[in-house]
Amino acid sequence: MIDVSIVREAVKHRKARSESFLGFEYLRFSDDYKDVPRGTAIFQDTVVWGYPHIGRVFMLEKGLKEQFKKPFWVEEKVDGYNVRIFKLGDRVIALSRGGYICPFTTDRLPEFINLKFFEDNPDLVLCAEVAGPENPYIEESPPFVEEDIRFFVFDIMKKNEEGFLPQEEKLRLVEKYELPSVEVFGKFTSEQVGELKKLLLKLNEEGREGVVFKEDSEENRRAKYITSYANLSDIKVTAKNMLQLPPEYYTNRILRLVLFMEEEGIERTEHLYEELGRAFIDGLFEAIEQFKKEHKVYRTFRCRFKSRDNAVALMELMQRTSKHIQVIQRDLKEENGYWVLTFDKVFLNMTGLLGHLLSGGLVFD
Amino acid sequence: MIDVSIVREAVKHRKARSESFLGFEYLRFSDDYKDVPRGTAIFQDTVVWGYPHIGRVFMLEKGLKEQFKKPFWVEEKVDGYNVRIFKLGDRVIALSRGGYICPFTTDRLPEFINLKFFEDNPDLVLCAEVAGPENPYIEESPPFVEEDIRFFVFDIMKKNEEGFLPQEEKLRLVEKYELPSVEVFGKFTSEQVGELKKLLLKLNEEGREGVVFKEDSEENRRAKYITSYANLSDIKVTAKNMLQLPPEYYTNRILRLVLFMEEEGIERTEHLYEELGRAFIDGLFEAIEQFKKEHKVYRTFRCRFKSRDNAVALMELMQRTSKHIQVIQRDLKEENGYWVLTFDKVFLNMTGLLGHLLSGGLVFD
Repeated sequence: MIDVSIVREAVKHRKARSESFLGFEYLRFSDDYKDVPRGTAIFQDTVVWGYPHIGRVFMLEKGLKEQFKKPFWVEEKVDGYNVRIFKLGDRVIALSRGGYICPFTTDRLPEFINLKFFEDNPDLVLCAEVAGPENPYIEESPPFVEEDIRFFVFDIMKKNEEGFLPQEEKLRLVEKYELPSVEVFGKFTSEQVGELKKLLLKLNEEGREGVVFKEDSEENRRAKYITSYANLSDIKVTAKNMLQLPPEYYTNRILRLVLFMEEEGIERTEHLYEELGRAFIDGLFEAIEQFKKEHKVYRTFRCRFKSRDNAVALMELMQRTSKHIQVIQRDLKEENGYWVLTFDKVFLNMTGLLGHLLSGGLVFD
Repeated sequence: MIDVSIVREAVKHRKARSESFLGFEYLRFSDDYKDVPRGTAIFQDTVVWGYPHIGRVFMLEKGLKEQFKKPFWVEEKVDGYNVRIFKLGDRVIALSRGGYICPFTTDRLPEFINLKFFEDNPDLVLCAEVAGPENPYIEESPPFVEEDIRFFVFDIMKKNEEGFLPQEEKLRLVEKYELPSVEVFGKFTSEQVGELKKLLLKLNEEGREGVVFKEDSEENRRAKYITSYANLSDIKVTAKNMLQLPPEYYTNRILRLVLFMEEEGIERTEHLYEELGRAFIDGLFEAIEQFKKEHKVYRTFRCRFKSRDNAVALMELMQRTSKHIQVIQRDLKEENGYWVLTFDKVFLNMTGLLGHLLSGGLVFD
C-alpha cells in the first residue's frame, strides 16, 4: 500500500486530486510524486498503481549488454494507448495511463476480454494496449488492426502492489482465459543480438512500433526499443498539429531514426530522406489547406460504444480534460448495434498561429 | 540617453553587467530590460544602443499589406553576424549583437571600412553584417562570399540615440565613403507584391537568405522575410549540433519553409521532401561518425587576423562566454601577412548524449 503521509503531501502539492466519475470517487495522481507514478488511483480500499515509465535504449547491441545481465523476454510494443483493467465492486473498469476512468475502454472491454478472468482473480489488474483506427485518443493505428479497436494484454499487476506477475504466470493466465495478448517473441540473451536485429528489421518493414525487453529475474529490469518506421509515423501523424507537442518530440524522433538506421546498417537512400521530409511537409500543408477552407485546424475521430451513456461520458471527460484542444461532437447515432460517436478535435494552438501568420501577422522569434 | 534609474534597476536584476575587455570598461545589457535591448553598451560618456529585434512576416502578400501603409525600401538580408562599429577615443571598435567587443571584427574592419567615415562622423555607428566562410561565430556563409569574410552595412545609428538615419541619408554616406553595403533592391509599395514574389523566388534560387523591409516614414516600421533556402540551410548546418539550439528552432523553420512554398506556389516535389530529410539526417550521421572516431562532436573554425593579440583575445572571449561549448585552440600561425587561427568548438551536449546512447544508456522520455 501507499504510505498515507505521502498521499497527504501529494494532495497538498496538487500532484493528487480527487475525481468523481461514472459513480466512482477516488484520488488520482496527476503527476509522479516521489515513488508514486502518475496515474496511480486510490479507491476506498483499493490502490491501482500507475503503469511505470520504461526506459528506452537507442542502440540495440550495446543497450542489451548494458541493461541485461540475465535472459529477457522480448514482446511486441503495440502503438495504442495504455490502460489498466480491474474489477471494483461488481463492475470491471479501465483506467487510462493518467488515471482517468475511460468510458470508452470500459464500455468496450467485455467484447474483447473474458470477464471470467476477473471473477476468478478479483485482485488482479490487466495492463493492456488498446489500438486501432476507431479509438478516441490517438491518430496512429498499427497496420494489423484494420477496423475498430483491439486489446493487447502485456502485463498483469496485483491490486495494492507495485510490480508485475512473473512472465510465466502471466502467459499461463493469458492462455487459460484466452486473453488477447501482444506477440511474445520468446526469451533471449544479449548474445543473440543478431537474431534480434533481424526481428527488428522485419517489424520495421511491417510498420510495427518496436519491442519491450523484460528481464526474467527478480529485478525484472525493462527497456524498450522503437523502429524507425514508428518514429517516421509519429512525425507524419502529428505534423498537422505541430504546436501541440513539445518541439523535442520531433528532434528526439529524428535522432532515434538516425540511430536505428546506423545500427541496422540501413543505407541513407533518397527514398528515406524523402520520407522524413514528406512526414513534416505534408502534415503542415494539410493544416494550412484546412485552415484556409474552414478557418480551423482539426481532425475527426470516430468510435463506437455499446452504451449511449458512455459516449456522452467520454465527450464530457474529453471536454473537461483536453488542453489546447476544443472537442466538438459531430454526431452520435445507432448503427449495427453500436452507438457511433464522431467528434472533432480542434487544434487551438495551430489554428491560432495560422490565423495570425496567414493574415500577415508579425512574429518576433 | 538612457534613464539612470533604469540602468541601476537592470544592474540589480543582473540584466546589465560590467565588462572590461581590450582596455575598455563598460556596462553591457546581457538581456532586454524594459525598453533597452540586449547588447546595449554604456561607455563613460557614450551609449551605443542594441540593435533592435525585427519582426518576421511568414506571408509576403498579406504581411506587407498588414504591416506597411506607406512605401518601403527592400534590402537584402545577409546571413552573417550582426555588429555595430564606431569610434571611441582614438580607436574604432566593433560590438557583437550581444554587446561584447569583438576582437576579430575590430581587427579586420580597417580592411573593409574606410576609416575616414569615423573621422568625419565620430557620432555615428555603422550597423553591418559580417559574413563569410572564415568567421569565428557561425557555420553558414552566403554563396557570394567565397573566402575570408566581407562586411555589409545596412543601417547607421547615432551614438546616444535609438533609431536609425533615414534611408536616403544612409545611402548618401554609403556612397560618399564607398562603404560595403547590402544590396538595396529599391522602394516598393505593398501593391507591388508580384514583383517582390519574383525577387524572393530569385533570391531563393541563388541561395540567399531573404530581405528586410524598411518603411520610408517617421515610424520606420520594419519586417523581415526569409527564403525557404535559408530555412533548409539553417537546419542542414546545425543538425550536427542539434541539442545546442532550442528544438523550436527546427519546428519554426519547417513551418516557415512550408509557408514559403505555399505562398510562392512551389510544388511539393520529391526533391524538396528529400532535401528536408537530408538536412536533418546527414548532419546527425556526421555527428555519430565523428563521435565514433574521435569520441567527441565538434566543428573546426578558421579565421585570420592582422594582429596576433586580437586572435589571443578572441580565444579568451570565446572560452569565457561559450555555453555548452568547449573552445579549443588548434593552431595560430603567420601566413601571407595574417595570423591564421584555427580552433574547434566541441559540442558538449551532443557529445554527452551520444556518449550515453552509443554505450547503451537508457533514456526516460
